[in-house]
Amino acid sequence: MSAMLTKDTRGVLAPASPGAGRLRPLGIDEVTITGGFWAWRQAVNGDATIDHCDTWEQRVGWIDNFVAARAGTVAQTRTGREFADSDVYKLVEAMAWEVARTGDERLDARIEELARLFELAQEPDGYLNTRYGRPGQPARYSDLAWGHELYCYGHLVQAAVARIRSGRDDTLVRVALRAADHVCGTFGPGGIESVCGHPEIEVALVELARATGERRYLDQARLFVERRGTGTLPDIEFGRGYYQDDVPVREAQVLRGHAVRALYLTAGVVDLAVEDGDDELLDVARAQFDATLARRTYLTGGMGSHHQDEAFGEDFELPPDRSYCETCAGVGAVMVAWRLALATGDLAYGDVVERTLFNVVATSPAADGTAFFYTNPLHKRVRGQEADRDEVSPRAMSQLRAPWFEVSCCPTNVARTMAALAGYVASVDGDTVQLHQFMPSRVSTALDDGRRVTLEVETSYPFAGEVVVRVVDAPEGELGIELRVPSWSIGAARLDGNPVVGGVARVRRRFVSGDTVRLSLATDPRFTRPDDRIDAVRGCVAVEQGPLVLCVESVDLPADRDVDAVALDASVPLVAMEGGAVASGRLVGHAEVGWPYGDGGTDAGQGTFALRLRPYHAWGNRGPSTMRVWIPAI
Amino acid sequence: MSAMLTKDTRGVLAPASPGAGRLRPLGIDEVTITGGFWAWRQAVNGDATIDHCDTWEQRVGWIDNFVAARAGTVAQTRTGREFADSDVYKLVEAMAWEVARTGDERLDARIEELARLFELAQEPDGYLNTRYGRPGQPARYSDLAWGHELYCYGHLVQAAVARIRSGRDDTLVRVALRAADHVCGTFGPGGIESVCGHPEIEVALVELARATGERRYLDQARLFVERRGTGTLPDIEFGRGYYQDDVPVREAQVLRGHAVRALYLTAGVVDLAVEDGDDELLDVARAQFDATLARRTYLTGGMGSHHQDEAFGEDFELPPDRSYCETCAGVGAVMVAWRLALATGDLAYGDVVERTLFNVVATSPAADGTAFFYTNPLHKRVRGQEADRDEVSPRAMSQLRAPWFEVSCCPTNVARTMAALAGYVASVDGDTVQLHQFMPSRVSTALDDGRRVTLEVETSYPFAGEVVVRVVDAPEGELGIELRVPSWSIGAARLDGNPVVGGVARVRRRFVSGDTVRLSLATDPRFTRPDDRIDAVRGCVAVEQGPLVLCVESVDLPADRDVDAVALDASVPLVAMEGGAVASGRLVGHAEVGWPYGDGGTDAGQGTFALRLRPYHAWGNRGPSTMRVWIPAI
Repeated sequence: MSAMLTKDTRGVLAPASPGAGRLRPLGIDEVTITGGFWAWRQAVNGDATIDHCDTWEQRVGWIDNFVAARAGTVAQTRTGREFADSDVYKLVEAMAWEVARTGDERLDARIEELARLFELAQEPDGYLNTRYGRPGQPARYSDLAWGHELYCYGHLVQAAVARIRSGRDDTLVRVALRAADHVCGTFGPGGIESVCGHPEIEVALVELARATGERRYLDQARLFVERRGTGTLPDIEFGRGYYQDDVPVREAQVLRGHAVRALYLTAGVVDLAVEDGDDELLDVARAQFDATLARRTYLTGGMGSHHQDEAFGEDFELPPDRSYCETCAGVGAVMVAWRLALATGDLAYGDVVERTLFNVVATSPAADGTAFFYTNPLHKRVRGQEADRDEVSPRAMSQLRAPWFEVSCCPTNVARTMAALAGYVASVDGDTVQLHQFMPSRVSTALDDGRRVTLEVETSYPFAGEVVVRVVDAPEGELGIELRVPSWSIGAARLDGNPVVGGVARVRRRFVSGDTVRLSLATDPRFTRPDDRIDAVRGCVAVEQGPLVLCVESVDLPADRDVDAVALDASVPLVAMEGGAVASGRLVGHAEVGWPYGDGGTDAGQGTFALRLRPYHAWGNRGPSTMRVWIPAI
Repeated sequence: MSAMLTKDTRGVLAPASPGAGRLRPLGIDEVTITGGFWAWRQAVNGDATIDHCDTWEQRVGWIDNFVAARAGTVAQTRTGREFADSDVYKLVEAMAWEVARTGDERLDARIEELARLFELAQEPDGYLNTRYGRPGQPARYSDLAWGHELYCYGHLVQAAVARIRSGRDDTLVRVALRAADHVCGTFGPGGIESVCGHPEIEVALVELARATGERRYLDQARLFVERRGTGTLPDIEFGRGYYQDDVPVREAQVLRGHAVRALYLTAGVVDLAVEDGDDELLDVARAQFDATLARRTYLTGGMGSHHQDEAFGEDFELPPDRSYCETCAGVGAVMVAWRLALATGDLAYGDVVERTLFNVVATSPAADGTAFFYTNPLHKRVRGQEADRDEVSPRAMSQLRAPWFEVSCCPTNVARTMAALAGYVASVDGDTVQLHQFMPSRVSTALDDGRRVTLEVETSYPFAGEVVVRVVDAPEGELGIELRVPSWSIGAARLDGNPVVGGVARVRRRFVSGDTVRLSLATDPRFTRPDDRIDAVRGCVAVEQGPLVLCVESVDLPADRDVDAVALDASVPLVAMEGGAVASGRLVGHAEVGWPYGDGGTDAGQGTFALRLRPYHAWGNRGPSTMRVWIPAI
């Protein structure tokens, strides 16, 4: 039995559309990114990345898996890892947001084409996975720990939610609803009492409940969340914490284990708490995420310190050279932070969204949108080899950006996030519009009382700190505008010339069309020092400029030096320059020794030079290089 | 066709018995450890560890695999990973050295019992592996990258070499010779032109050639060494460097990839170079190992920085909290360093043997010899859970020592090394005896000219620096005695009261029985600072005492503090005390912050206290704790 789709339930045209909480997000039909860095990235995503992913998914056979599933040959011919179906679904989700954003008819037709393949592969009872259940394949749900069947449904459902919110009731939606109904029937009361090794179905089912108004999807999500941490999955080498099955959600203190899993789960937990008005659960999720920000997050917003299990480390275990910082974990952190901002009304979570978008999500794709970092380390010791643009990389820890991976979750995750990016920019609460992210954009919406308002944002942020909000169409009566003041500018921000107290710049008054509000932020480059407990970067400084983390890259160093030859004199002020900053660098010499432990002597007297620092997200775009964010300070 | 076993070829009763090179090692029938730390460890090994391993290998089914292989049921019943056979062989090798050391008849009978199981499982053509080749199993040699078949033979052969050198020609020897002949037939000229993903067969075949005088085993070892690095194994996620198949051995600059693989290979390369008088190859191996010591080795002598692939990191990538430092890599490093000492005559490699024995190999087993560390990190941030002494640990990175692991290579590797330890202590060159390691011991051998000499070493080293060598039975004419001066005592050592220049204390004269030579070493605790390029421990100091690396453990801190609350004032001299040292500690306070990047402020003003440091190898023996070797210096 499928849900009824109505305009009332489907929510705003955005990846997260809570039915409750403090702030109502604006959809991508209400916010348009009109210029600047993100408009460029969105254009590249639409022009290149989405087709790139489609081409590669055809080439490596992941789309053909669905054809073969129908034909009965998939047990012999299937390609890709156990979760390969999910990457096709994520591609379709990216297409769905791109169609919603641009009306692209070719992509619209492609969605239908792919959805028909899914439909043909789907079993009569709604089960859909190309890897399980047929002769010669493992049985359905025989390996919940690693099988990813529910994870794959989750991404199918998220793609379908994008279509529902676009006003569609098409093949994709029907397939996803049948799959979701199958999940409720199979894992509901009296069914299999377990969870998927990779959370994702939880957030998807809450979103589907929101988009359809069907309570049972929410109930099923709650079952999955409440079962988690009760040990229904096997103990493994990495421990049950790997898939957050070690401790019940309500008892956990911090995110742990596989970072993407932990973050997707937390996104679902926040959504569930919001829908059910379960403030205790919301507080738990918030406390876990806040603890993770305080103790387990890299300066870039990246999460995950271990390569072995793609996992969070212990508190303050944040090695820059071995940072995993998977691109998908960046997407997951944006999902959680945005949901917490909406649920709590705390605009500070926009800092996390912004930091992670600029320094993790934007770091992954090459400028042309057809090669990607899977991991995003903060220190690269050795010049890598340029990835072959025609080869699948077997390595997650690729040396330079690669076109595709054996595990290729990141490219499509970037694609869906970029296409839906305008859904993370603004919200409304009563008669007030919140601007969480600053970029040239147009915001046109109705306030809660129905009055319409249109704003235009003009800025060259983050390269300069001036953000001008023009009220293009002013409503009758009072209008509130709230702008997030990033943490690094608190105390130094001005609104129309007046000092702003705290982390939100507020104005509430009657506006005449054409009026402006001007927020001035301090985007001068600045030194940042780590907490003493982050052993791996003791004695180092980083340089940030606004929300951008900067780095030193060997291609900017004199005489073909590598970054281990550089120290920084932090007593000399930084100088801003186009696309970065300049610091006082010192070349460091090292004697060759047979044993690197003794008196620790270093010769830092080899000369001073202008040390050029550039945005971290742009590193690795000028050929093989070494790079570091944290620089030894002298 | 099996080799002829003769007394002429079998070599000294030790794990490495080169046919050439600068120094001739003394066997465990020539060197007896008579007291002190290592005698205790040998006793525990013989009394507890070997039986412990036998019991566990029965319990987890790895011995029964051989029975089932004969019975034809192993495809259905086999337990353990693909290399489980090798752990039974390593156990037998440990038993063989223990029998040679003590004459234990019960163990002697047990070796025969196990060897008969191997014999029954062996195929008529000499093939022997419980995991491959039978109906329902993968085909022989169908997965050289991961199958470990040749690796397993290698350990079988090493066990057999121990028996041959003990003067035996028993079932074990016959099984191993048939297997080795099968390897030569299958992988020799015209055979499979590839190598095993895990090196080990190389060192084993050279040793077998030495012990039997059969050149073809050496030729086969050479084929394997020369093929390595030519890409006969598949590219994998970790790259071919993981199994040293990225670069030919002669072209590589440093050890890389999986540490145990790299070290076992290098041991075989040194052995091969020595037997063939291939000085170029010897120089290559030495240069690679020296570069590894200079840039990729932990202070403890531990090797391997990555958990993901149990591998070396890049140069200077040596995180203390994520150090892998697998116990087996310690064993491999001892094997290589000892071989280089013998081949080159450079006693400084004894420093590496000593450092690694005291701080890696000795760290693994618990005091009672029935629980083990698999990895040996230099920093433990979080108190672990005591391992269940009755459960197999699925985790290599166990929290505390565990009785057995799913991959349980380390316990038997410790066992075979401890049983044969006297084989790493002394050597002869002409009329000179070299003492590489200092412990209460008795050395009784013939000089190259046939004159007999007996020495007794009396010392409480490493807890004090006096080493007295008593010439119990003096030969007629001149005798040379050379004692290694550890690097940390060079310039501060005295021989019979006179300053010693350089790294070797030498005396050559006529001795009268009862004469003594006294070496005095500086074993006061000392501060050690890391090379500036080891980013992970910048700003920290370690404390060493003689060859012992010390550490701070939370159980020695005031008021239930953890080690992240401690800094050390390195301007205050260290004080030696029983079993360690005392430094000037400072308690450090940390404000709770929501984001750990900013001004990096730390409050180090919470008081000074006597910071107790104890030998690293003994950590984790007093219940759950946090621990660190590198301590922030103020």
